[in-house]
Amino acid sequence: MSASRQIHLVRRPHGVPVPADFAVVEVDTPDAGDGQVQVQNLLMSVDPYMRPRLTADQPLDVAMIGGGIGRVVQSRHARLREGDLVRHGAGMQERFVSDGKGLAVLTPDPALSLSVYMHALGGTGITAYGGLLETGALKDGEQVFVSTAGGAVGSVVAQIAKLKGCYVVGSTGADDKVAWLKDEVGLDAVINYKTQPLAQALAAATPKGIDVYFENVGGAHLDAALPRMNVRGRIPVCGMISTYNGGGEGVRNLFALIYGRVRMEGFVASDFPHLNAAFVEDMTGWLKDGRVKYQETILDGFERAPEGLIGLFSGLNSGKMLIRVAS
Amino acid sequence: MSASRQIHLVRRPHGVPVPADFAVVEVDTPDAGDGQVQVQNLLMSVDPYMRPRLTADQPLDVAMIGGGIGRVVQSRHARLREGDLVRHGAGMQERFVSDGKGLAVLTPDPALSLSVYMHALGGTGITAYGGLLETGALKDGEQVFVSTAGGAVGSVVAQIAKLKGCYVVGSTGADDKVAWLKDEVGLDAVINYKTQPLAQALAAATPKGIDVYFENVGGAHLDAALPRMNVRGRIPVCGMISTYNGGGEGVRNLFALIYGRVRMEGFVASDFPHLNAAFVEDMTGWLKDGRVKYQETILDGFERAPEGLIGLFSGLNSGKMLIRVAS
Repeated sequence: MSASRQIHLVRRPHGVPVPADFAVVEVDTPDAGDGQVQVQNLLMSVDPYMRPRLTADQPLDVAMIGGGIGRVVQSRHARLREGDLVRHGAGMQERFVSDGKGLAVLTPDPALSLSVYMHALGGTGITAYGGLLETGALKDGEQVFVSTAGGAVGSVVAQIAKLKGCYVVGSTGADDKVAWLKDEVGLDAVINYKTQPLAQALAAATPKGIDVYFENVGGAHLDAALPRMNVRGRIPVCGMISTYNGGGEGVRNLFALIYGRVRMEGFVASDFPHLNAAFVEDMTGWLKDGRVKYQETILDGFERAPEGLIGLFSGLNSGKMLIRVAS
Repeated sequence: MSASRQIHLVRRPHGVPVPADFAVVEVDTPDAGDGQVQVQNLLMSVDPYMRPRLTADQPLDVAMIGGGIGRVVQSRHARLREGDLVRHGAGMQERFVSDGKGLAVLTPDPALSLSVYMHALGGTGITAYGGLLETGALKDGEQVFVSTAGGAVGSVVAQIAKLKGCYVVGSTGADDKVAWLKDEVGLDAVINYKTQPLAQALAAATPKGIDVYFENVGGAHLDAALPRMNVRGRIPVCGMISTYNGGGEGVRNLFALIYGRVRMEGFVASDFPHLNAAFVEDMTGWLKDGRVKYQETILDGFERAPEGLIGLFSGLNSGKMLIRVAS
C-alpha cells in the first residue's frame, strides 16, 4: 500500500475552468498483485483537448483523463520489470496499479531529454506530423499558415513545414513567442493576434495566399484564413481552442470553401499509427541535429495539474505544458 | 441588325437584391458577320450562385452573367447551322452575336422537354451528381441529409441518394414542397425549417446520424447538421444561400469536425467534366423512366429575369427557376 493522490473534476466548468472545479484527493494505492505492476508517475500532460471533455464525458470524482510517463516501481508482471519507463494513459494519478494493458515501454534516446517524449516525440508530435503531412497533404514549397505556432503542436507543425521548404506564417499571442518563432525557428512571418488586427496582418503576410492552414484555434482565426485560401487548399482541423470555453463569434466566411474547392478535415492523434515508425525516425533525427527546436513549460508538483490545464487558455505555456510529478 | 434587350446590374445590392438594382436595356444586335452566328435566346437560368457575384465580379451596366439555351437564327459559321439549339454562357441577352466559342450544340432527346437540359440534365444536374458521388463520395445505403431539397440541385441530390439505397432526409421551406418530397419523391423524412425547430427536427429524423450532408444553405443548417455527423462523414459544400445576402448567425459547431474526422469540401459544377458522359447516360435514363422527378418554375418574359433571381431568396421557385425568352 502506498500513499498517492489523484486530480478529480468535482464540478463541470462554465467557461474557462477555475481551480475550484478540481480537487486533489489523497488515496491509497494497493501493492501490485499477481500479473500487475505499480507505476510511479513522473511526467503528466495537460492539453487543450481536455477542455471539451470536462463538459462532456469526463466523469466527476474520479482521476482525470490524461497521459504521462511513469516508472515501474513494483512488478509481478511477466513483461514489465521494475525500473522500466512506460508511457500510459492512466490519468492524473501519482501512483497506480495496472495489469499492463495500455502501458508501452519507453527506451529514450540518451541524447534527448525524457520530456521530449511527452511532446515532439509524443502525442503532440504525431498530431503535428500526421495532421500536416497526411490530412493536410502538404507539398514541398507550399504556403502555410499555422495558428498557435508557439504551442506544442503548432511549433512542430511550423518547423516541419519549414523543413519541407514551405513559406510559413505563424500566429501567437505574446511577443516573447513572436521573437522565438522569428529568431530561433525562422518563420517567414509571425503575427501577434492580440496586438495586431488578425485579418489584415494575415493578408499582408500571405501575398501568395495559403495552401495549408493548420487549424488549432477556430473562430476569428478561421475567418481570417478562409478568404486567403488558394484553390484546392487544405485546412486540417486539429483543434478550435477559441471555442472550448464558450463565447466567441461564429464563423462567417465558410463560403470561401466553395470557389476555392477547399477541403477542411478533422483528425486526432490516434489516426496515424501507420505513420509512427517514420515519425519516430524523422523526429528523432530532427531533434538530435537541432532542426526541430522546442520550448516546454514544466510545473513542478503533482498538485499543479489544474493550474497547468487552466493556464493553457491564457497562454501561460511556451510550447508544451507538462507537470513534473517526480524525477 | 435586330432589336434586343439585356439585363444589366445598375448598382450593387445590399442584402436581398431589389428590382431597382437591375435594368432592362434595349440594344441593337448586329447581324452575324463572317465566321459568326446570331443566337435567339430561348431559356435563361437564374441561380443562387449569382448573388455573391453581384457583390463581387459582375460588372455594372453590361449584360448579366448567366447560362441558357438559344437557337441559331443567322449563321455565317462553318460548324453551326441556322436552327441549331445551343447551350451558351452569353449572359442575359435576348439575342447575341458569337464566333461560336462557348456554344455547344444540343440535341435533346425527343422524349424529354427542352427545359430539363437547363436543370436535371444541365448545370444543376451535374452539380448534384458530381457533388454527391465524387466530392461527397457517397456509398450505397448511407445516411444522407440534403438542404433545400425542393430546389434544383437539392431535389436531384435527394433522388440520386434514394436510387443508391440511402436513407434520405431533406429540408425545405414550404409545406407544398414538403408534400412533393414526401409523396412524389419518397424521401424518408422532410423538415420544414421555417415551421419546425431545425436542430431538434434533424436529430429526430436522423437516428443513425448523417454520413453525407449535402450543403446548400450554411448558417443554422450547418450548425444543425454538424453534431449529427457520423465518423468519417462528408460535407460536400455546394452553396451557402443563407449567407449570400449578409446577416445570419455565424457557424458555431465546427468543433464537431475534429472527433468525427469529418471532411468538408467545396466544389463547383465545372469540376466534373470527366463524369459528364456517365452523368448524361444515367440521368437521361432516370428521367425517361421517371425515377428522377422534377419541378420547375418558369417565368414567361425576358424582362422577368430580375424577378426570378430575387425570388430564389424567398423560395418563389419549386425546383429549377427558369426564364422563358422565346419558344
